Amino acid sequence: MKGLIMKSYKKELIFNTPHRRDFINITDLAEQCLTESGITEGLLLCNAMHITASVFINDDESGLHSDFEAWLEKLAPEKPYSQYRHNGYEDNADAHLKRSVMGREVVVAVTEGKLDFGPWERIFYGEFDGKRKKRVLVKIIGE
Amino acid sequence: MKGLIMKSYKKELIFNTPHRRDFINITDLAEQCLTESGITEGLLLCNAMHITASVFINDDESGLHSDFEAWLEKLAPEKPYSQYRHNGYEDNADAHLKRSVMGREVVVAVTEGKLDFGPWERIFYGEFDGKRKKRVLVKIIGE
Amino acid sequence: MKGLIMKSYKKELIFNTPHRRDFINITDLAEQCLTESGITEGLLLCNAMHITASVFINDDESGLHSDFEAWLEKLAPEKPYSQYRHNGYEDNADAHLKRSVMGREVVVAVTEGKLDFGPWERIFYGEFDGKRKKRVLVKIIGE
Repeated sequence: MKGLIMKSYKKELIFNTPHRRDFINITDLAEQCLTESGITEGLLLCNAMHITASVFINDDESGLHSDFEAWLEKLAPEKPYSQYRHNGYEDNADAHLKRSVMGREVVVAVTEGKLDFGPWERIFYGEFDGKRKKRVLVKIIGE
Repeated sequence: MKGLIMKSYKKELIFNTPHRRDFINITDLAEQCLTESGITEGLLLCNAMHITASVFINDDESGLHSDFEAWLEKLAPEKPYSQYRHNGYEDNADAHLKRSVMGREVVVAVTEGKLDFGPWERIFYGEFDGKRKKRVLVKIIGE
Repeated sequence: MKGLIMKSYKKELIFNTPHRRDFINITDLAEQCLTESGITEGLLLCNAMHITASVFINDDESGLHSDFEAWLEKLAPEKPYSQYRHNGYEDNADAHLKRSVMGREVVVAVTEGKLDFGPWERIFYGEFDGKRKKRVLVKIIGE
């Protein structure tokens, strides 16, 4: 434990995925932000700035990502579009539901200048309504 | 990035919804807290203090809220009450499950004195066992 | 609201559950961390360091925990193992999905030296692939 003066840091990351749904490992980008910030003890918040996308922590394994895709489609199917009242002018109600399951944000401990992760923890951007520019926020506070 | 002395702020918000389930936009209330706090850089935590309610971020669109209601009832139906072991003296097991899907809390970045939100991000109180007084906590740290 | 010098504190908790799936009340352990930290105003992050486990807040009631178990098995069944592409050398794809529903982490306000909880809020470790040593991180910042 130490007595410190608080610092804060902010950056926006931009994604434009080729498919409606994609999972992108953004751990390296978050680590770059941490290095830029100079913060060594504190908390890092990483959140989707759009309500049809997620930021979550899980395993970087393609089989698992296929399982997430199939499972989320079972829990909240994209089609038929007419099953959702939100889909008057939109077709992305399913993306709002999928993002609710996977979560908007992660908060990660920063210890000794590093993301304080277990062995397999990686940060992912989960896109559920892609093919357009969307943003992720990284905010770090601490020292 | 700046060197700052840390401040903290806390407030409880009270809700008493007319229905068992309701979604209430509490973004303005959270912004009022931020203004009162005088904090310009940091993190804002907003969480349900009850385990049958949620705080989450999504779109302020009534069709979507109907979709959430129908979807959560499909994933974790209220009735028959006898399907849940928690419902010995209670009838709200479904509310505990629904809240688990939607989440207990949100952490929002505070940048230049504002909630650092994307274009459609709004904070909602999600009530799943209402018609009585319940509380939401707003805690802000930073400077 | 007060002007304070920031402190940080970190501890890892170890769990080795007897069953594949278990829910353990870790509120007392988190409170011990808070006491050790000497922090009286701030935020406490508590997260699973493994991607097949959760930390979440809900009620300490055994009927409800049975309901969680049955409900999560319905949403993301363990078997047949062959239904998941992640289960090439592993058999724990369902644990990754269950953890996604229940969440990786909680962020709790610290006010006047205490976890700022509603009447029934308790912190749980949710194990979905147990019978081996796994870690939970507690990080506290504030003063």
